[in-house]
Amino acid sequence: MARSANSASVSFGFVGLGNMGSVMSQNLAGYAQKEGFPKVKIWNRSRGKAEQLAREGFFEVSDTLEDLGKSCDIIHACLANDEVALSVYRQILDAAKSGVILADHSTLFPDTSTTLRAEAVAKGSSFLSCPVFGPPAAAKSANLLVVLSGDEKSRATLKKYVVPTLGRAIIDCGDDTRKGALLKILGNSCILGTIELLSESFTLAEKTGFDAELFYEFIQQWFPAPAWINYGKKIRDGAFSGNTGFTIPGGMKDASYIRRLGVETSTPTPTIDQAWSHLSTAKAIGGEGLDWSSCSAGMRVTAGLPPFKGEDFTLAKK
Amino acid sequence: MARSANSASVSFGFVGLGNMGSVMSQNLAGYAQKEGFPKVKIWNRSRGKAEQLAREGFFEVSDTLEDLGKSCDIIHACLANDEVALSVYRQILDAAKSGVILADHSTLFPDTSTTLRAEAVAKGSSFLSCPVFGPPAAAKSANLLVVLSGDEKSRATLKKYVVPTLGRAIIDCGDDTRKGALLKILGNSCILGTIELLSESFTLAEKTGFDAELFYEFIQQWFPAPAWINYGKKIRDGAFSGNTGFTIPGGMKDASYIRRLGVETSTPTPTIDQAWSHLSTAKAIGGEGLDWSSCSAGMRVTAGLPPFKGEDFTLAKK
Amino acid sequence: MARSANSASVSFGFVGLGNMGSVMSQNLAGYAQKEGFPKVKIWNRSRGKAEQLAREGFFEVSDTLEDLGKSCDIIHACLANDEVALSVYRQILDAAKSGVILADHSTLFPDTSTTLRAEAVAKGSSFLSCPVFGPPAAAKSANLLVVLSGDEKSRATLKKYVVPTLGRAIIDCGDDTRKGALLKILGNSCILGTIELLSESFTLAEKTGFDAELFYEFIQQWFPAPAWINYGKKIRDGAFSGNTGFTIPGGMKDASYIRRLGVETSTPTPTIDQAWSHLSTAKAIGGEGLDWSSCSAGMRVTAGLPPFKGEDFTLAKK
Amino acid sequence: MARSANSASVSFGFVGLGNMGSVMSQNLAGYAQKEGFPKVKIWNRSRGKAEQLAREGFFEVSDTLEDLGKSCDIIHACLANDEVALSVYRQILDAAKSGVILADHSTLFPDTSTTLRAEAVAKGSSFLSCPVFGPPAAAKSANLLVVLSGDEKSRATLKKYVVPTLGRAIIDCGDDTRKGALLKILGNSCILGTIELLSESFTLAEKTGFDAELFYEFIQQWFPAPAWINYGKKIRDGAFSGNTGFTIPGGMKDASYIRRLGVETSTPTPTIDQAWSHLSTAKAIGGEGLDWSSCSAGMRVTAGLPPFKGEDFTLAKK
Repeated sequence: MARSANSASVSFGFVGLGNMGSVMSQNLAGYAQKEGFPKVKIWNRSRGKAEQLAREGFFEVSDTLEDLGKSCDIIHACLANDEVALSVYRQILDAAKSGVILADHSTLFPDTSTTLRAEAVAKGSSFLSCPVFGPPAAAKSANLLVVLSGDEKSRATLKKYVVPTLGRAIIDCGDDTRKGALLKILGNSCILGTIELLSESFTLAEKTGFDAELFYEFIQQWFPAPAWINYGKKIRDGAFSGNTGFTIPGGMKDASYIRRLGVETSTPTPTIDQAWSHLSTAKAIGGEGLDWSSCSAGMRVTAGLPPFKGEDFTLAKK
Repeated sequence: MARSANSASVSFGFVGLGNMGSVMSQNLAGYAQKEGFPKVKIWNRSRGKAEQLAREGFFEVSDTLEDLGKSCDIIHACLANDEVALSVYRQILDAAKSGVILADHSTLFPDTSTTLRAEAVAKGSSFLSCPVFGPPAAAKSANLLVVLSGDEKSRATLKKYVVPTLGRAIIDCGDDTRKGALLKILGNSCILGTIELLSESFTLAEKTGFDAELFYEFIQQWFPAPAWINYGKKIRDGAFSGNTGFTIPGGMKDASYIRRLGVETSTPTPTIDQAWSHLSTAKAIGGEGLDWSSCSAGMRVTAGLPPFKGEDFTLAKK
Repeated sequence: MARSANSASVSFGFVGLGNMGSVMSQNLAGYAQKEGFPKVKIWNRSRGKAEQLAREGFFEVSDTLEDLGKSCDIIHACLANDEVALSVYRQILDAAKSGVILADHSTLFPDTSTTLRAEAVAKGSSFLSCPVFGPPAAAKSANLLVVLSGDEKSRATLKKYVVPTLGRAIIDCGDDTRKGALLKILGNSCILGTIELLSESFTLAEKTGFDAELFYEFIQQWFPAPAWINYGKKIRDGAFSGNTGFTIPGGMKDASYIRRLGVETSTPTPTIDQAWSHLSTAKAIGGEGLDWSSCSAGMRVTAGLPPFKGEDFTLAKK
Repeated sequence: MARSANSASVSFGFVGLGNMGSVMSQNLAGYAQKEGFPKVKIWNRSRGKAEQLAREGFFEVSDTLEDLGKSCDIIHACLANDEVALSVYRQILDAAKSGVILADHSTLFPDTSTTLRAEAVAKGSSFLSCPVFGPPAAAKSANLLVVLSGDEKSRATLKKYVVPTLGRAIIDCGDDTRKGALLKILGNSCILGTIELLSESFTLAEKTGFDAELFYEFIQQWFPAPAWINYGKKIRDGAFSGNTGFTIPGGMKDASYIRRLGVETSTPTPTIDQAWSHLSTAKAIGGEGLDWSSCSAGMRVTAGLPPFKGEDFTLAKK
């Protein structure tokens, strides 16, 4: 992108309009409109979601990824997995004009990130690994923690608007895109580990007759971090309806990335192995639709408790 | 205590002047002095520590626990373990005038707490379980989280000064002293679990070539809780010199309480079991003097790394 | 014992007539009768069991442990735990004539064994740690594996009849009685670990649709060891009626010895920790009366299976 | 195969002449020679190994898999992994005359086995899943345990000579080839679990001062199963030179199959997860060339012991 984002117009694209992408793209559209930039071009595998967004916001639906590549300066994306990411970015890069910045917010395995960067560079473009931390609600309120990694010039370009447009803070991992992808996985290891700890602690509280509300009060006081507060509340209430969060298969995909990093570097990952086991149990009992904090259902049965304490998600009951 | 702490003088005592007790007693002495109450009477197993405090602060050294029991209205205590606690409180209760409030800040097994309460009640006195969360530095700055449990009247008395004299917030667990002791153990389970998670995550970061400083920056952003911030820093730096914190044997004592609760209620405690194993390894390699966050040394060797990354605490090297 | 067991009469005693002791004492009585020795003197906490045995076999019931100590040359014992063992042996030693040999078949913590040996030596007597491997059925058919440890002369005396009277083979651990007690615990670690492995493998077989009978056929072929054959069969069939074997609390007591050895020597015991968790789960679901191979019920629920596949031992169903 | 193996000549082929295949093929060649059948046709990725065998035994080297497919009635194979197996069998099937029996002794994932069977049936041929249990030494002495699964007629054909030509016993898993592959994985789970248990027990023995030779004597007495005897000896002596057995990467491949079965069926595999961690540690310390029983090196460092007790395989020392 030869033009400065301050002095000249920037044409944005956004690909992948799931739980996270749909709200992030809306924040980006708000910024573009305020700055007097063109409408944000959007593309989604199922076109309906894109059209719905376009009816309500400052968007223009693209028919093809090729069109997006040809007409945008910066394309943000939130994609489901590495396979989809490779396919989507390659279609964009095949059509893209030189100098396009691809800003990836997906959770990709580091090697995939490295591959895509090399392919982008070969086409005269730029690929940034920019995973984000925070649930859809934080994405909506632009309270995400945004990781940046990739070439310096493109990072500088994104820093002009990422805060406060998309998030509340940036962690700059420098030039190597592998680092951004890594931090997402390392961070998820802390989050899944937190879910495992909360699962074990709330179970021990219940078995020893300690009040769950009071225990949650302690957590609010002593562990005032989003993962502890949000997942502690879900586990306290047994509120695992997956449509508001991140499901078991998503959690197991992330866990599989953590374990794969462990395998490749000969590093044991015992707490993640344990969380994986509890997620397996939860999936066996309640199916794939539950929020990943239902890990606690897997823990509860090992203590002889019913898997669920609020709504009963047991498959057999359905 | 028939007198109101607002309208009349209160005579305080403090027993157990270790890392925590010495700073907590100083804050209490400051309060007593400001309120125009008598000097705080102190007793410690090794008298030297008491005399040292008395030279600097608003204290009077007691020769015996009996003397303390006879002359004080409210006696706070920070004791090493259940055995010491039973011995100390029984000596005090044998001598105490009716109506004395014993406010215990130790980490006791819930049954011990229940026993002491019953014995206090039998003597016309009151026993409160008031464990605290926070390291010595937080005790010094009166930033502890203070748990209260025990009879309502005595809790009301303590609420008049505990915040801001000793801590920044109270969690009120109600009438049953067992609850206060339980919350301390459940909370420690979250803290030790956090140390385990940090040990695993920093090890995976190092093995995958991710910068420890940058990973700590993420933790500061996304896990702004004291346990994560404090222990994350120690683990980042390999700074396990035990004289500033809580040692491996102390951590294993707490872990043994968690596991004992698990045993008594048939509740598995897998992450604590894993942390215990890593603490065992750290103790085997570096001895008993290290901070319990040296749990990470136990994790590091399982990944083929040297146990320590900063100062080398290996016993064999000494 | 000044007399040679070959050339002269030996007066035997037997204390502790539970599942193991009752059959072992019968084999000893058969030997005494055949050799023309006096009737075996027996004592049991509940006298009824002793009287019942005496009606059927070559036994004489003793009224007191003191009587036993005064009149026997060699006293075998099978006791429930360390506390009982300390009490029983001290009563015997207080009364015993010099030279008595105490042959202990209990599972004692090594320190207890060392203590008893020292006390026996101080009285001019001998204490041997002689734990046995094998279930009651193997005790009945004299197919036990008998461990011997203690002073050389007494071991030589026992070697004259232990095989084939009580068992099929001896493992001689030498002079130090601590070693015999240790081997029992180390061996139980292998047995409990085997139960854990079988629990996991049979569960995986069931979940993958592999026939349990066929899997057991493999185990018979490739793991022809008593623990694998016996517990494999129980787990295959879900046959955990505890009156024929060793119950969950007994298994957890043994596991606690293994873990305590781990604690004292800073040695992690991960598989035993895992087995402990599965036993906890089984106890929470099915109570204390089940055979310890019901560990598999604890594993099964983590895979979303009903805890029991044969008879339903669920407490709630009763 | 229309001809009866009793009444008429059978033309054998053997593919994959590694540690296992080379000795199994020699036993097959001995049988063919004794029966007056043609020389066994062999093919190996590196032809040198085939030529070496042909110089010494009743073999004929095939230039291509096509040639083997065209000229043999029954082709046995011992292949490295699923990818190689798919490639090798497809080349054979493309050329094979109708009625060829493919007898696979590799460790394949069950789905691969099912795929190959379907492809064989489509070509009018037969595919049997016949994994074997036992190390190269057992293969040499025809003491393997041979699993059979696949169509009944082909199984009947193999039963005529597999015992005693290749092994000492057969486990017949019936018509479904998936079952044979499954049993190999389930069985390996028992073997790797045994290695883990032995690693933990020998470590605890060493830390408690119990003699390793004496502990091994117990294992010989109470766990007289090949995995316990063979791996117990290696662990006792720290003898992990990989050229005589099965290496860490091979063990981790098998463990990954077990865990993948767990993933696909939502079944936790905790002991295998633990063994995997110890293998990771052993690989990080000693590299990929060691026997998989070096799992014990991973366990030993967690107890503060040097990883190796006999020969020092530490990478850094080399």
